[in-house]
Amino acid sequence: MSTPTDFPKPKSKADTEEGTVFAPRFDAEGLLPVVATSAKTGEVLMLAYMNAEALRRTIETGEAHYWSRSRGRLWRKGEESGNRQRVVELRTDCDQDAIWLKVESIGVEAACHTGRRSCFYRAVPLGKGGTTLTLSFVDAERQFDPGEVYRHSDAAKGTLKSSES
Amino acid sequence: MSTPTDFPKPKSKADTEEGTVFAPRFDAEGLLPVVATSAKTGEVLMLAYMNAEALRRTIETGEAHYWSRSRGRLWRKGEESGNRQRVVELRTDCDQDAIWLKVESIGVEAACHTGRRSCFYRAVPLGKGGTTLTLSFVDAERQFDPGEVYRHSDAAKGTLKSSES
Repeated sequence: MSTPTDFPKPKSKADTEEGTVFAPRFDAEGLLPVVATSAKTGEVLMLAYMNAEALRRTIETGEAHYWSRSRGRLWRKGEESGNRQRVVELRTDCDQDAIWLKVESIGVEAACHTGRRSCFYRAVPLGKGGTTLTLSFVDAERQFDPGEVYRHSDAAKGTLKSSES
Repeated sequence: MSTPTDFPKPKSKADTEEGTVFAPRFDAEGLLPVVATSAKTGEVLMLAYMNAEALRRTIETGEAHYWSRSRGRLWRKGEESGNRQRVVELRTDCDQDAIWLKVESIGVEAACHTGRRSCFYRAVPLGKGGTTLTLSFVDAERQFDPGEVYRHSDAAKGTLKSSES
């Protein structure tokens, strides 16, 4: 079986951008940012991170796995909340240092640990100068009660980083 | 005028997640990851980074500004390619350490420096074990000729990081 870190190393810029070898470029901490969007609505659900092992497991199983930066461990999306993500498509970007997942939700579509469909439930006003800005809630209805779902979990104890549920 | 770094500091976890004060949480390098999607198609166009100044200018002007990690400078999207991004909506996530921009393209919709609409023009096969994987090109038609557009630019000299155009 492959070890988690043996993805090919990127060669030239041309190979990275125009080649067909998947050679992901992890950052200094061994992570890649990952955008998950809903295959149904196109909405951005969350932004999280993968290490090589999370990426390999996601590809192999077709279920989203991430790296929890706060807990310092691999995390299968939905392992506590039950709201898992089936990956419909996985893409890499031009310089292979970011991932886009299109996902179908298994169970409730609620990617956010706060119980909402998306983690992006607040808008920043545009056209304003300065840095004192009031957020407005948008598409912020809760799909589940986090107090109920995470009653016995890290999240309930307040040790869970947002969206890592 | 505000200095670029005077966004409020996050207070409690509860305030960060459920409050209306925009208090972005920059990483150790002073950056936030930013997902830009097409307001027209919903497609993920690119993943880039903003520092406080790029974020402030984006909010104030309604045009996407990023921080170029390779060039170490602020970068107004489209400053060289002409393919600017008008921000329709700017959202933050639950823990305020990521940004989602919905953008309309001014000029050609081609967010990628390779001339493509999106930087995510290659898919990784699913259901495979191991780490030797062949990418397939999807939605990869070029909207412009990068050799022509960047003839006199950093990109043409090979010093431009992917997607920073």
